[in-house]
Amino acid sequence: MSALPPNSTIGIIGGGQLGRMSALAAARLGYRCHILTPEPCSPASQVSAATTLGDYEDPAALRAFAEAVDVITFEFENVSAAGLDLLASLRPVHPSPTVLRISQDRVAEKAFLADAGVPTAPWRAVASPQDLHDAVTAFGLPSVLKTTRLGYDGKGQAMLRDAADLDPAWTVLEPKPLILEGFIDYTCEISAIVARGADGAGTVFDVMENRHRNGILDLTLAPARVAPGTAVEAQRVAWRIAERLGLVGLLAVEMFVRDGRVLVNEIAPRPHNSGHWTIDACPASQFELHVRAVTGLPLPPGRRHADAVMKNLVGPEETALWPAIVATPGLIPHLYGKAEARPGRKMGHVNRLFPLGGLPGDDGIRTALGCIAPT
Amino acid sequence: MSALPPNSTIGIIGGGQLGRMSALAAARLGYRCHILTPEPCSPASQVSAATTLGDYEDPAALRAFAEAVDVITFEFENVSAAGLDLLASLRPVHPSPTVLRISQDRVAEKAFLADAGVPTAPWRAVASPQDLHDAVTAFGLPSVLKTTRLGYDGKGQAMLRDAADLDPAWTVLEPKPLILEGFIDYTCEISAIVARGADGAGTVFDVMENRHRNGILDLTLAPARVAPGTAVEAQRVAWRIAERLGLVGLLAVEMFVRDGRVLVNEIAPRPHNSGHWTIDACPASQFELHVRAVTGLPLPPGRRHADAVMKNLVGPEETALWPAIVATPGLIPHLYGKAEARPGRKMGHVNRLFPLGGLPGDDGIRTALGCIAPT
Repeated sequence: MSALPPNSTIGIIGGGQLGRMSALAAARLGYRCHILTPEPCSPASQVSAATTLGDYEDPAALRAFAEAVDVITFEFENVSAAGLDLLASLRPVHPSPTVLRISQDRVAEKAFLADAGVPTAPWRAVASPQDLHDAVTAFGLPSVLKTTRLGYDGKGQAMLRDAADLDPAWTVLEPKPLILEGFIDYTCEISAIVARGADGAGTVFDVMENRHRNGILDLTLAPARVAPGTAVEAQRVAWRIAERLGLVGLLAVEMFVRDGRVLVNEIAPRPHNSGHWTIDACPASQFELHVRAVTGLPLPPGRRHADAVMKNLVGPEETALWPAIVATPGLIPHLYGKAEARPGRKMGHVNRLFPLGGLPGDDGIRTALGCIAPT
Repeated sequence: MSALPPNSTIGIIGGGQLGRMSALAAARLGYRCHILTPEPCSPASQVSAATTLGDYEDPAALRAFAEAVDVITFEFENVSAAGLDLLASLRPVHPSPTVLRISQDRVAEKAFLADAGVPTAPWRAVASPQDLHDAVTAFGLPSVLKTTRLGYDGKGQAMLRDAADLDPAWTVLEPKPLILEGFIDYTCEISAIVARGADGAGTVFDVMENRHRNGILDLTLAPARVAPGTAVEAQRVAWRIAERLGLVGLLAVEMFVRDGRVLVNEIAPRPHNSGHWTIDACPASQFELHVRAVTGLPLPPGRRHADAVMKNLVGPEETALWPAIVATPGLIPHLYGKAEARPGRKMGHVNRLFPLGGLPGDDGIRTALGCIAPT
């Protein structure tokens, strides 16, 4: 694949903050962006040259969108199989529909990972209440019951702690079928982000450590405070997955660390919330690498020039801290252009840089974050 | 002035790269941008939520534009007095029309600087061939004859080296009247960029050194290689000018250094080409400070976390180096989305970072710039 020339148009499926920040990175590289989204004045549309307003499943919208662009990529990966096939018949699509299909479905994803020899929690597809009881008998409790599709930010899953939890969880979780995963008693959660080009070359960013609150990412520390061997293993696992997928684009791999070893939790073939620190701490951010990979530009190393902490701004309470945030030198603010700060909605994030190798301990991080320190 | 809330709209007069990079910074702060430009698909429009396509002198366009925005600022400052008054009657305008009027006219600018006690080259307004001969008699040769309005990138000026140059230069330069400036035999050219808010607080970036080619900025070194006392004097002079102007916004001050002292060459109340290195080397770039000043957000210090060199990409020859640039790790590329690389046109720039305090000598800079090293 030869690189798309400057002033070409990148089509991005999805109008959220990941598309917005990809569009900002694309602009620096001289590309125009065209967004497909059902949302008027979406975060990504606000900074893009054009938008097709339409549903992700509407063939007319998908066709009009595809015909207006030179290459297609995603910030929202839940397009139907038929929609993906239509897009791929019209324009190059990166990552490929095959990759999207695997990442859309937790059972397909876990089966792929097992086939690739990548360690995960024990899992079993669950199509009926009887399947669920059998699986719980096999894994024990606690276990985690999840939808196979459309889960994010802790939605679409339930922790099963005792036998009485099974039937209510089965009833509530939609859409069916479901998947049961054995509970992992982990030391910490980490992630690794890979960029890989069509020529098979690529790079993995330094591994980061993620802390969640109410199922939503709250804080990312870069680099992760794990043993060097664990970090290297995480990068190797992420790269192996990208290679096995034949990835062209960006891939985030979420992992649990237990006894110094990594278990893959899930994968996402797109920019990832845990990589937002790279905007300010790396010469080329995850968004720039995303754009480079899908347009065929060479991929510089995912190298950081600073250590960093990223704090998400979620919901109305944290968004209300904005005046204090912009008044604090050293806090680097990012807002997404969303009109309404609903509870649990990611409205923006703040990066804080530290000298390379100088990431402080938890107390130091709390001090450095000041008004937005986690409570 | 209380700060504009997130999701407010900043109106930017002008659709070029300075507007584009201001819009990218505005997006990070959660603002939307609306561009006024006569150019379809302008660099700034490509990354902004809306555009009014119209002429800078058309009252209907100015009115429609003003009514769509919450605050007005500029990347192109040559709006007529009548146009500025119309805009100011409809919305807050930062910097103020008074500041714009001074910076639009070299005679008004020099008179203002003289009044502020700021040293410049000797100058004299020139309204006739006789004025020109009288002024040359006073200053000697060489001297520089310039239009008072609309000059940029070395356009609208002529170097007078001997008496035979006077009449042809008078004939060619338009629009009249003109201004004659004594020639300064300087050691180097530097610039300082000030951001100042409505409350009178503000910051000055580290002084940078500028090298031109064919009258167009070619290379900026940050920080400038001048004596500490010279750098401090340059920052003091720039701050004094901003204060005297009652500036709300960004101001770039170009200066000559001679015998360790500074002489102001010209001022521009907007982001400036010599400040493009701040995008990658500072937690808050000149564009972010521009946006913060005009929206009433607090101004963090214009502090750098790295030394930097900025190389402009001008015209078709340098733009042709793009594939080599994007293939060189460490070169941070920025393109402006312009369709055609005409000779002398600024198409983009490249930043290269160095550890703080580690800016190398000319040979080291040439090595670090690799394929785009100045010849």
